[in-house]
Amino acid sequence: MKRLVCVRHGESEWNKENRFTGWSDVDLSAKGHEEAKQAGRTLKSQGYTFDIAYTSVLKRAIHTLDHVLDGLNQVYLPVVKSWKLNERHYGALQGLNKADTAAKYGEKQVLIWRRSFDVLPPLMKEDDPHAPRNEAMYKTVPADELPLGESLKTTIERVVPFYEQTIKPHIEGGENVLVVAHGNSLRALLKFLAHIDDDAIMGVNIPTGIPLVFEFDDDMRLVRYFYLASQEELNEKMAAVANQGKVK
Amino acid sequence: MKRLVCVRHGESEWNKENRFTGWSDVDLSAKGHEEAKQAGRTLKSQGYTFDIAYTSVLKRAIHTLDHVLDGLNQVYLPVVKSWKLNERHYGALQGLNKADTAAKYGEKQVLIWRRSFDVLPPLMKEDDPHAPRNEAMYKTVPADELPLGESLKTTIERVVPFYEQTIKPHIEGGENVLVVAHGNSLRALLKFLAHIDDDAIMGVNIPTGIPLVFEFDDDMRLVRYFYLASQEELNEKMAAVANQGKVK
Repeated sequence: MKRLVCVRHGESEWNKENRFTGWSDVDLSAKGHEEAKQAGRTLKSQGYTFDIAYTSVLKRAIHTLDHVLDGLNQVYLPVVKSWKLNERHYGALQGLNKADTAAKYGEKQVLIWRRSFDVLPPLMKEDDPHAPRNEAMYKTVPADELPLGESLKTTIERVVPFYEQTIKPHIEGGENVLVVAHGNSLRALLKFLAHIDDDAIMGVNIPTGIPLVFEFDDDMRLVRYFYLASQEELNEKMAAVANQGKVK
Repeated sequence: MKRLVCVRHGESEWNKENRFTGWSDVDLSAKGHEEAKQAGRTLKSQGYTFDIAYTSVLKRAIHTLDHVLDGLNQVYLPVVKSWKLNERHYGALQGLNKADTAAKYGEKQVLIWRRSFDVLPPLMKEDDPHAPRNEAMYKTVPADELPLGESLKTTIERVVPFYEQTIKPHIEGGENVLVVAHGNSLRALLKFLAHIDDDAIMGVNIPTGIPLVFEFDDDMRLVRYFYLASQEELNEKMAAVANQGKVK
């Protein structure tokens, strides 16, 4: 049996403030640090070990991974950081409070931007200092590869090739692979691996800090996937994420 | 001008207890965490930025690097972890208190083991569960490449080729490179880069948490090297390291 384990980063400072985060590089909240440590403890207690880890270039994911590796006592693990695993880029919405945006554009429009498959958010301008092409941390990436705003569809178009070309060969080779990423980059992966259709994926909320395990047969066909948590814990977590888009 | 910056990890739990650490994977002490954060602040305040970082597979170095990257706001940096940058392996001395060892073998013998160029410590047995070849974290490395005990000479024989083959091309290519490692792996590098002879290197103590900057001309000839600290701070730090081998 071959295996991939994914963890969505814990609560960030902006999740807490209910703002569109996207590629804004905000750190974990105190609760987010705790969620990340808990994910490490869960994996350790169930006997999981890994051979390599992948994460985004955003610090809330990297710090989550750091906590998980501490918990596993596998700090030495090779770690690959790639922008291809970043959160969906929320374009010009980044930094806005979700409730304010809902009051302004209507809750329905916010839900469309958050949960629709192929609707792009309002794009960032190319000369925006916060556009990835203008930020030092992306200076090694050609500007035209970097987004100014993404839908789930365009997020998938960079996450899935990265999975297929870079991550999957390690799983096929028998390595235990850990991916620590974001709500939408993990939703992209889940949609692809579990063949979830464009409409259904809108309703799927991946909870923070709960390890999501994918098991494959020797031909890399998905056998099953499951969270390492009780159903009660899952329901609570998923409801919390779904409520973020409501006007408050 | 081309540049390499090295940082020795901060105080570990075993430095504090005055024990031979080597490849024992002990974590930073509270003071060590602080020293690492200070190194990050120093580099940030002097305007240093980096393109890639190298460290060992030992958590006290990795956690030091994590703090430095936090301080620099460069958490996204690619990080390469290699056992080639590990501390000198102290063989069968690992875990022993330095003062007890000095009382047993004599302070002079301890100083020879700690500071001589080519005297090996008593070796670990091949079937010792703590021998690197038997530890999960080295399972991808061929057993016969892994030491059972090292002198500074044999440490150099793995550090310098790693520098020349893996690190140096990045410096030559104009990247700013950060190396976070250990007292003896950094001494190995310093000896090689600054052409310090076998006797003189015995007296060189690299202080913890103080960035050590190497500047090269375009042909990679060393122009100068210096610590980012006041002379007073340096003297204090170096005396602390030199005193660790004394009987207490």
